[in-house]
Amino acid sequence: MNEFEFIRKAAEGWPKTAEGLLCGIGDDAAVIEGPRGSKWLVTTDLFAEGVHFRRGWCGWAVHGEKALLSNISDIAAMGGMPWFYFVSVASPKDVSAPELLDFMEGMAKAAKKYDMILAGGDTSASEAGLVASLTVMGMADDDRIMCRSGASPGDGIFVSGRLGGARAGLACLEKGHPGHVHLVERFLRPAPRVRLGNWLAGNACASAMIDISDGLIADLNHIADLSGVGYAIDAAKVPADDGVFEVAEAVQMDAMDMMLAGGEDYELLFTMSPLQEEKFINDASRVDFGCGITKIGAVVGDKNARRVCGAGGRAIEAGRSGFVHDIGG
Amino acid sequence: MNEFEFIRKAAEGWPKTAEGLLCGIGDDAAVIEGPRGSKWLVTTDLFAEGVHFRRGWCGWAVHGEKALLSNISDIAAMGGMPWFYFVSVASPKDVSAPELLDFMEGMAKAAKKYDMILAGGDTSASEAGLVASLTVMGMADDDRIMCRSGASPGDGIFVSGRLGGARAGLACLEKGHPGHVHLVERFLRPAPRVRLGNWLAGNACASAMIDISDGLIADLNHIADLSGVGYAIDAAKVPADDGVFEVAEAVQMDAMDMMLAGGEDYELLFTMSPLQEEKFINDASRVDFGCGITKIGAVVGDKNARRVCGAGGRAIEAGRSGFVHDIGG
Repeated sequence: MNEFEFIRKAAEGWPKTAEGLLCGIGDDAAVIEGPRGSKWLVTTDLFAEGVHFRRGWCGWAVHGEKALLSNISDIAAMGGMPWFYFVSVASPKDVSAPELLDFMEGMAKAAKKYDMILAGGDTSASEAGLVASLTVMGMADDDRIMCRSGASPGDGIFVSGRLGGARAGLACLEKGHPGHVHLVERFLRPAPRVRLGNWLAGNACASAMIDISDGLIADLNHIADLSGVGYAIDAAKVPADDGVFEVAEAVQMDAMDMMLAGGEDYELLFTMSPLQEEKFINDASRVDFGCGITKIGAVVGDKNARRVCGAGGRAIEAGRSGFVHDIGG
Repeated sequence: MNEFEFIRKAAEGWPKTAEGLLCGIGDDAAVIEGPRGSKWLVTTDLFAEGVHFRRGWCGWAVHGEKALLSNISDIAAMGGMPWFYFVSVASPKDVSAPELLDFMEGMAKAAKKYDMILAGGDTSASEAGLVASLTVMGMADDDRIMCRSGASPGDGIFVSGRLGGARAGLACLEKGHPGHVHLVERFLRPAPRVRLGNWLAGNACASAMIDISDGLIADLNHIADLSGVGYAIDAAKVPADDGVFEVAEAVQMDAMDMMLAGGEDYELLFTMSPLQEEKFINDASRVDFGCGITKIGAVVGDKNARRVCGAGGRAIEAGRSGFVHDIGG
């Protein structure tokens, strides 16, 4: 059973809305009623040793930073601002107290960058491997919250920034490939697109949004599944991080796979009606989001039509593609 | 470094209040602004194999139930009603998919008993041992939230129910002592005192409250620390669960230790001004809380005076007593 099957089974039968709950399980974050018409966004993610990180890759502070930054990206994907975080750490005997405090300190550093506050947590021992569980609350100050379910046929499909860099950086770490420090940095220190996500929600121009954590195709499939639509994207238009092709060649991996299925780029993937597009291009050009925005394809009505063209003639598996954890032995 | 030292260091420097945050790190739950003057209570707890539970003790569904019930107790301790839960599970290879679904099913069973909704979560592999992290949100519908910090000199100290049963039940499981099924049940299936906690908060009669998860003395110390007071309790007045003395003798443990330092009874420990006491006894006698309430001592002004009398002449360490995890190798 993979993680998506498990989540589907575990989520089965639970209501999507209830008193106080505007949007339940299934999106990047739950949407919960806040004060004076505002909404709390609540997301929770694991950061587990041997799965999400390995000790030797960097210091504990950098691991802590990444654990929080990747959660902040979920808040960005819903259009909110990060606000509070809660952190629970199950720590094995071979992590020392100073290392554990470094891990917390790295998290605190990332939190301060986004004006976030640590509001609670828990600690425990672990049998092996450090497991951190973060719960992040974000605030959305009006009704313009971005979900995965709003894409309509004819909408354009857009990505922020460049892709493949995180997977290439991970390959450098795993295969001991030197150089390309900026790609390793890209993997270890994601830059959640908070400003862009918040702007898109505030200006009500995107129809659906998600952050690219599992991989472009996998995350596009999440939007397609929840919106009941298909898509056609042109892989040749997907912008690559500098150095992805060189690293891919050096480590004998496929650069296009890194960009389309690598995951952990923490860029935003969103859809937009053609009616909004001109206004968006015009207005957005005046704002510095810290990244470019590229149109890579369009939403189509047939939910079984999931096409990826222009990937050099290679067949790209547009079904379930991306990073999938296996759950249950 | 033990868990309390680690938490103290990790929590250092964070504000207790901020925009949207009425009470931050340090209590059973954070208090966050909700809609129409209501408050969200947010608590997060780990439930780790080898630390909080062992596989052979019972089926996975019962483990799942307990994981949620112990979190609900934190909401009860703040006077709120449990509302939503988020669950992240890091699962090792030797837990099968059906076992994992059983674990979730047990949690869902406990949730339904309290009208709670699963609102999100995450899954991942784990290097060894299952680690579940739960975040529970509760709702408090007015300003009457119970904290640990409100105890004043002269207040009475009260406990709900009976103590020592969970520790005795754990001893039965650990030492293979047969019989006393009700004590094993007491340990595996806590009964969070939601109705009592909510009633005490709603009637504004308790001055401070906490749930007994670490152990009576350890949790009383949390109240004393945060209220800046001391206490004198009469151990002879602490009500014991039926069978605690028999089990203690059979497994060669100290029954009084089980009651005062055993932990995981998930009863409520609260303080109350003498002015409220008569009204409380009168009003509370008309409500069925599902448990008795016993006065066991009084709050004193000297914060260094932490006295436990009547424990059969044995010296009870009233400093840090109870179950404390060691953190950091």
